[in-house]
Formats: sequence, C-alpha cells, structure tokens
Amino acid sequence: MRLLRDSGALSRSDLARRSGLAKATVGTIIGQLQQAGAVAEGTAEASGRGRPSTPVALTGHTLAGLGIEVNVDYVATTAIDLAGRRLSFEERIINRPQMADVVRLVREEVARLEAEGITLLGLTVAVPGLIDRVRGVVVEAPNLGWTDVDLARSLREELDGRIAVAVDNDANCAARAESLHGVAAGVNDFVYLTGTVGLGAGIVHGGEVLRGSHGLAGEVGHQRLGDDSHHCACGRRGCWEAVVGLRALEHATQVPVSAGEDPVSYAERLAEIPGTYRALAGIGASLGRGVAQLAATLDPAMIVLGGSFVPIGEALVPAVEEALAASFTGRGCSVALSTLGLHAASVGAAVDALDDVYAGRRTLVA
Amino acid sequence: MRLLRDSGALSRSDLARRSGLAKATVGTIIGQLQQAGAVAEGTAEASGRGRPSTPVALTGHTLAGLGIEVNVDYVATTAIDLAGRRLSFEERIINRPQMADVVRLVREEVARLEAEGITLLGLTVAVPGLIDRVRGVVVEAPNLGWTDVDLARSLREELDGRIAVAVDNDANCAARAESLHGVAAGVNDFVYLTGTVGLGAGIVHGGEVLRGSHGLAGEVGHQRLGDDSHHCACGRRGCWEAVVGLRALEHATQVPVSAGEDPVSYAERLAEIPGTYRALAGIGASLGRGVAQLAATLDPAMIVLGGSFVPIGEALVPAVEEALAASFTGRGCSVALSTLGLHAASVGAAVDALDDVYAGRRTLVA
Repeated sequence: MRLLRDSGALSRSDLARRSGLAKATVGTIIGQLQQAGAVAEGTAEASGRGRPSTPVALTGHTLAGLGIEVNVDYVATTAIDLAGRRLSFEERIINRPQMADVVRLVREEVARLEAEGITLLGLTVAVPGLIDRVRGVVVEAPNLGWTDVDLARSLREELDGRIAVAVDNDANCAARAESLHGVAAGVNDFVYLTGTVGLGAGIVHGGEVLRGSHGLAGEVGHQRLGDDSHHCACGRRGCWEAVVGLRALEHATQVPVSAGEDPVSYAERLAEIPGTYRALAGIGASLGRGVAQLAATLDPAMIVLGGSFVPIGEALVPAVEEALAASFTGRGCSVALSTLGLHAASVGAAVDALDDVYAGRRTLVA
Repeated sequence: MRLLRDSGALSRSDLARRSGLAKATVGTIIGQLQQAGAVAEGTAEASGRGRPSTPVALTGHTLAGLGIEVNVDYVATTAIDLAGRRLSFEERIINRPQMADVVRLVREEVARLEAEGITLLGLTVAVPGLIDRVRGVVVEAPNLGWTDVDLARSLREELDGRIAVAVDNDANCAARAESLHGVAAGVNDFVYLTGTVGLGAGIVHGGEVLRGSHGLAGEVGHQRLGDDSHHCACGRRGCWEAVVGLRALEHATQVPVSAGEDPVSYAERLAEIPGTYRALAGIGASLGRGVAQLAATLDPAMIVLGGSFVPIGEALVPAVEEALAASFTGRGCSVALSTLGLHAASVGAAVDALDDVYAGRRTLVA
C-alpha cells in the first residue's frame, strides 16, 4: 500500500518486483484489498511484450483517516481517504477548547462521516504542547491550559475502541503534511514553524520527523530570545513565541485576529494600520534570529513558515532570509511559506492516522 | 566485522545466524580475514549439544585507522586497531597549524607506524570548521584562518593514494568517539559540545551523527548569544564561542592556557585566581542558555561537555543543569563531562577511518 501511495498505479508484476514479494503473494494481497475496497484495477495496458498488465491503484474513497487539530481558538478536522484525497475539512471556532469539546466534536464528525458510508481507519489529534505519544497523553499545553490530559483514553472510550486513536504534537503533524502534500514535498531535511498563538517546530530529518529522546524535539517556542517585557503563557518571560507569535502581533498592531476569520482579509486589514510596518519588521527580525539558530543546529534545506505567518509572509520572509544570509552556515537554507496554511496540522494528523495501515501494522482485512 | 566489533567473539554459526549469510559464505570470509590478520580463533567451547564451536574475534593489532585532530594550538594523532584498542596517541603543540604542518605530521606518523609493522586502513582528519566531506575540503575554519583548503587531495598526493583519506568536522568526530568509547556509550540521542577556542556541536540522533542537508549541522558556535562586546574570529560579534570558549575564559581570568599544558594544573591555577568564580559563573550561565536552546530543539538524553570544559566542569555543570531544569523541556536531559577530554576528536577520527572497513565498503582482501 505504501508503494501504491508513493508511486500511483502499479501492475502486480511491478508491485512484486519493488516489494520483493512473490507474485502469487502480491496477487492474494491485492485480492483482499480489492474486497476491502482499498484498491481498484485500471484499464489493461499493453507493455510491448507479454500479455497486457493491469494497473492497480489505491482508491478507497470510503476508507479514511481523521485528523483533528486542537488550537487556542479553533478546532479543525480533516478527513483524508486512502488515496490521499481530502474528503472534508471543517473548522469550529471554540475559545480555549477543553477535552470535552474535542470528545464531542469527534463524536459528531465520526457520526457524520460514517453516515456518509465512510469507514474510519484511524484518528489522530494534533495538540500544541508536550505530548507523550506512547500513552496518548497531553503532558502540558500552556496556551490551552491543559496539564496531564489523557486524551487518547477518553476518545477510545467514546468510540468504544472501534477506531485507533493517537495524539501528537501539532508542529510534527503539520511538518508531515508539508512533507507529503505541501511546499516541502520531496525535501528530506526541513523545519516547519507553526505560527499561531504558540510557536513550535516540526523537524524533518532524512524524510522522518525527528522526535528526540522523550518525543519533545522541536519545542522551540519557549527558548529565551526576547527580554522580560514579553510574558509567556508558560509562566516564563522572553520566550520566542511571546515575541513573534500571534498575540505579540495583535499587541503590536492592535489588530485582533481569530483563526476563524479569513487570513487574507486579516493581512489586508494589517496593511492599512499605521505602525504595522514597524511591528512586522521587529517580528521578522526576532523570527529570523531564532530561525538562524535552528539552521545552525540542524542545517535544513528549507524553513517553512506556517499558520498565521502565511498571510503576512511578504513582510516576514525577507527578514528571515536576511538573518540566514548573515549567519555562519544558513546561506544554503531557503525560506518558504506553507501552502496548507491553518489546515496543515489537521491534514498531517489525518496522514498520521493512516500510517499504520500503509505500514501494514494495522490490517484492513478481518 | 561490524558484528564482531559490537559483540566481541562469536562462533561462525552465530555470525551466520546474525548476518543472515550462509554458513559456508561466513567460513570463506573468516578464512580471508584470518589471512589478512584481521581475526583470530579462540579456544573451542563445548556448547552442550553438537560439536564444540570455536569463537572468532577481531584482533588485527597490525591493522589500524589513523585519526588526526587539527586545532588552534595543537595537532593530535591517535591510531586505533581493528579491535578498537588505542595503539598510540601523540599531541604536538603548533600554533595555528597550516596545511603543510598537517601533511608533514601525517608523513611522519605514517612512516613511524609502518616502521612498526602496522598497516593503515584509513586516515581521517578532524578540523574545527565547515567541512565539505564529499570533496574532503575545509570550506572555512575561522579559528585556523583556513578557507577552501583541499586537505584530502594534498594528503592523497603525499601518500600516493595508498591510504583512504577523509576530512570531517571535529565535533562530529568527538561525538563518534564518545558514542563508542566514552561517556555516551549506549546513548542514542545526545549532543557533544567541543570546548576549545571554537565551539561546535556533534549531534547524535538515533545512534548516528546528524549531518543536515549540506553536512553543516551542529555549527552552533556562531549563534548570536552574547552582545557586541564579544568579538569572534568569524568577523561577527556576540557569537556563542566568543562568549564561552577558551579565549573568553582566558580573557575573563587572565590565566593563559595552551592545550599542551596539563588541564588539571590549569584547573588548579584557575582556582587560585581571584575573580575566577565570577568569570566561571558567567560562562556557565551563557553555556547553559545555549545548551537549553539545543535541548529544546533536539530533546537529547544527554549533553556531553568536552575539551577544555572538562577541567573546569565542576564549576560549569551545575549552571548548565540549572538552565535545563528551568527550561520548558530540558528536565529529562543529563549533563556529563567527556571522559576522553582533548583526545576525543582524534579518537573519533580514527574510528571514522575504520568505518568503511567495518561496513564492508573497503575490503581487506586483495
């Protein structure tokens, strides 16, 4: 299935050759996947010699993964089918959502999708905070006010264990999405920066999310890069996210923004405000300073600015590029804006929800 | 050979089982390695059933890798044999060595070792700077004053191509050494910090050195963590290495140090100087600040302080631990002092010089 996801349609012979499995085994597996509705046959094509080969492709538009992003003032859900097509995206404005909100939303989304005849193969929740992925617990999410929230267990109980549940960090999920479906497709080493109220990094190294020894790699938002005048939700002062995050931008420009509003109109409103230029220049410089440090440590090929950085990217990207150019090693690192914007984390969570299926760790066939 | 290095003595049956190779193939390979002097048979042991098995172990004390560390005021060489035993260590005090010094030293060391009947299987030079490992070129080493130095080519010419030559960053080599022979043995995710005139990080992630997209990962010494009063050899101001490196320590304490002197006596002299405590506290705080940022990004299990940090470690470690404890994610990261001290980079370079042999990319048998 991973071969089909990454290569599109392949004949059974190609699948056997590339997987190293016997052709008969491939035939059996494809037969089972056809029965499960995961793959379909295309039109036979003459290959020039021998009998025409019939390509097999992932279809499975009734088989999907559900991704949920919990953030400070919204919860977003994305369903993606087995072939990687987006089936649905929804965003609800909820201020500082609590676990009960997430459980209720999951209940509604699962019911809605199942009523449409969709079978959910997995569900991943992306949360801005420290996640114990093994236990599915949100250890600490300062901007949500969550501490030791056993989210996976509550969701499993709600769903009677019918659907596999995982919890991951939002930046890691967004980086997965950019890696598969976004601006960093094909880039092996890059760093994604969430730009919402919080600031986290999803680090992709050699094509995989770098997790570190406790799964906490990329928690760069609470590095001290500013002075004591910047108060952070974590209780510290001078944290990077308190200097360059959405609250800092709102404070500096006096323009309130909520994620539910059209980000383009937000950018337009910002452009009309006196003092905006200066505020953005300051935020761009602080953003560039931290990005240059990340680039020095990780030597990524690309930095992707996501979330609310996207609509004001025109103002930020030159400042970040300048900081990289002035640094000791950052000249080879490009700066890109996310093409998935505020959807990235929920898209990546949906991708994550299907991972075990592609990897063969979760079976489609009873 | 890698199996024998990592597991010690193994029987031919064990080798076949663990490598997945046929027993006959293993027999042929072991025969060839015996002829090359790389392995030797131990005493047969009865295994309880079947005939007694004869363990095979790496010996090869006449087969070695040569590691050379070039630093600001010394060049160190270490030879390690195939079984991982150190055959020799030598340090020469040379102020700001140039490429001709390195070539001359290599010529002498190779001649000396070959006169002792040792066959050199590879040679790696560790340099504090930006290295293009593919071409073997030192792109920039500010503290040595080197720019675009084609070190590998000069050494290959000197040696008539008889010995494989590589060039790597000193922090990456030191991290390899700590990982195999030092305080971080068995730790999968850690960061080694060189503490000499320069400051670089060797990042080990999942047991491998993290290199980044251009091989420049870990170049953290030129992050801006200080103010304009700190002038750096790279031409910038406020670089981390200008704040916490050896020159900053000398400047703050007025105690000159050269690498040739006994580091313990240096620590003793430091302890007698008024104002040393304050200077060390300041350096410890700045070191802790940068370490906390690295920990936030990478979530390592351990930070290893190396080089000249070791003799003053008693003063630095508590400050670094404090910074980690106060940070958002650093509480799970321990702080250790290198047990290899100033030898780490040359030991790691010698380990690197043997890598292709263990991996089977370079053959011992004509």
